[in-house]
Amino acid sequence: MTNQSHNPSESSVTVLGLGAMGQALAGAFLKAGHPTTIWNRTPNKGDDLVARGAVRTATAAEAVRASDLVIVCLYDYEASQAVLGPIAADLSGRVLVNLTSDTPERSREAAAWAAEHGVAYLDGAILVPVTVIGTPDALLFHSGPKSVYERHEGTLKALGGKTVYLGEDHGLAAVYDNALLDFFWTSMAGLVHAFALAGADGVKGADLAPYLSALLSIFPPAIESTAVEVDSGEYPGEQAPLATEAVNVDHIIHASAHRGLDVQALNGVKAVLDRAIAKGHGADGWTAVIEAIRTPEPQAQAR
Amino acid sequence: MTNQSHNPSESSVTVLGLGAMGQALAGAFLKAGHPTTIWNRTPNKGDDLVARGAVRTATAAEAVRASDLVIVCLYDYEASQAVLGPIAADLSGRVLVNLTSDTPERSREAAAWAAEHGVAYLDGAILVPVTVIGTPDALLFHSGPKSVYERHEGTLKALGGKTVYLGEDHGLAAVYDNALLDFFWTSMAGLVHAFALAGADGVKGADLAPYLSALLSIFPPAIESTAVEVDSGEYPGEQAPLATEAVNVDHIIHASAHRGLDVQALNGVKAVLDRAIAKGHGADGWTAVIEAIRTPEPQAQAR
Ligand SMILES: NC(=O)c1ccc[n+]([C@@H]2O[C@H](COP(=O)([O-])OP(=O)(O)OC[C@H]3O[C@@H](n4cnc5c(N)ncnc54)[C@H](OP(=O)(O)O)[C@@H]3O)[C@@H](O)[C@H]2O)c1
Ligand SMILES: NC(=O)c1ccc[n+]([C@@H]2O[C@H](COP(=O)([O-])OP(=O)(O)OC[C@H]3O[C@@H](n4cnc5c(N)ncnc54)[C@H](OP(=O)(O)O)[C@@H]3O)[C@@H](O)[C@H]2O)c1
Repeated sequence: MTNQSHNPSESSVTVLGLGAMGQALAGAFLKAGHPTTIWNRTPNKGDDLVARGAVRTATAAEAVRASDLVIVCLYDYEASQAVLGPIAADLSGRVLVNLTSDTPERSREAAAWAAEHGVAYLDGAILVPVTVIGTPDALLFHSGPKSVYERHEGTLKALGGKTVYLGEDHGLAAVYDNALLDFFWTSMAGLVHAFALAGADGVKGADLAPYLSALLSIFPPAIESTAVEVDSGEYPGEQAPLATEAVNVDHIIHASAHRGLDVQALNGVKAVLDRAIAKGHGADGWTAVIEAIRTPEPQAQAR
Repeated sequence: MTNQSHNPSESSVTVLGLGAMGQALAGAFLKAGHPTTIWNRTPNKGDDLVARGAVRTATAAEAVRASDLVIVCLYDYEASQAVLGPIAADLSGRVLVNLTSDTPERSREAAAWAAEHGVAYLDGAILVPVTVIGTPDALLFHSGPKSVYERHEGTLKALGGKTVYLGEDHGLAAVYDNALLDFFWTSMAGLVHAFALAGADGVKGADLAPYLSALLSIFPPAIESTAVEVDSGEYPGEQAPLATEAVNVDHIIHASAHRGLDVQALNGVKAVLDRAIAKGHGADGWTAVIEAIRTPEPQAQAR
């Protein structure tokens, strides 16, 4: 276990929700020696956790009463409020850590609800797949009262070696989570689109992949320079002006449309480029698209 | 120079176009010891190349007649055809390598035009910024007749250590180029959007950047597995089903819209997710979006 200073009897944990992730969390707590109580809406889940020593309860209220520290990890915050709402009295005086993914707004609402009911509340976000939970590589964010985090840090670190406290604002874990997944899922959409585009001309995935991998070396310096440019509001573009990149993106859209492929996401990329150029950023660098991202067309915002 | 077996007098080169990239190309040829002739529409460019020994001509026709190997690198294929069209007779019997970026269709049209005029033709694409040209890291693609490529490989390698021949189809260099840039620019759009999203809640670029960089380690295995899945048409999703990822993307869209940020590209990503799920891929993995990318909604194709 990661924190030998904890007496196991003081650091029992309850896990509400035994989906793929809830089971991984409970498994990591068990492995680290924490007495673990589990509950799930559909009762047939978690047999192997019980075999490993977990105590399974029939109701969420019973599960909550078994530990000072309660972890919840469900489908979304609607689900978590459906479970937590009726047992507010049982939670009162305990520490609740919500590791369900959602928006910062939902986290802040949940924090307000917890405060109303005398529940000490941390919000969290899990940035790794279930297989990585409990390993040194597992990245998890937490936000909320620092004193509460510090009290339970040792127990929470059973879930991942990269357990990070971000600050008092309960929304911060979701802010970081959403931003990282924004980059990740948009990139993954571009990745599959790239395979579709080359595949339309007979190029096998296996033949394209090595070049896509080679391209990755551009990202570390690009992330660094983008961060500097975002923070300074200056977007130098001598080497690669936005107006030139826009021509490239246009070629990709034309080639994709010519092959009967979807171009909706690419059109969205092109739209911010065009708007940034219209705002006078044509000679600036790529990061200048942030000026257009921050001032969307009215119809481009709603879905 | 990269190929000592060449006699410099046999491997003189002409470069048409002295934009940022054309100048870098001519500079690399000079550095490798190739007698280099240069031309640009606007005549005042390339002074320092002349100082380094390049011969600058007043017309494109004169420049072409100076070398057996002619490199063209202009704004796009409309520009390159505007330059090359009138001097077809001068190009006849020589080797033309077009390193201008555009679509595979434009490359194939240019190849047909070259064949008509007795010009041996290679199409190419440059995958690195000007500063990397002439270094071991510079990636350039070529496609067209293999015999022509092999004859000039030694000279062409002056431009980059990673000079790759892709095949006889003249469109292939652009196919690979467009696919790589599809992934790259879509990812870069997601990157700036991520900074905008976190920035809206006061998170500095410098604070988000380390986590974005850490996330990059997911990409090499993701590229490998996506390639395998694309090639096999099987998209296993036990660990992370598309339906769950769609909920995550929805959170990002909601959080972005709530902060008044543009969500057009994200809506495009969500649209292919939703269509893939509607086609029955909800329990499959992310790569299943390729089925929706290949069958766009009619209105999603045109801009
Ligand atoms: N899986 C991953 O790799 C991963 C990675 C990072 C973050 N996350 C996040 O972790 C959270 C859980 O993900 P998961 O993979 O465990 O999802 P999952 O396997 O789909 O499990 C969903 C859980 O939510 C419960 N649930 C749904 N609606 C409910 C309701 N109205 N009332 C009570 N319980 C309800 C389910 O209970 P039943 O069994 O009764 O349906 C189940 O326990 C999500 O926010 C996800 O984004 C997951
Ligand atoms: N720069 C990079 O980092 C980079 C990286 C990879 C690929 N590329 C590709 O390389 C190509 C050239 O890029 P660049 O950066 O050199 O662009 P650039 O600096 O904008 O230069 C454009 C060149 O095209 C010429 N041109 C434009 N329209 C013309 C016309 N109608 N007739 C004759 N000449 C015309 C310009 O001549 P004037 O001087 O007379 O205007 C100039 O020589 C593009 O396809 C680009 O995508 C560039």
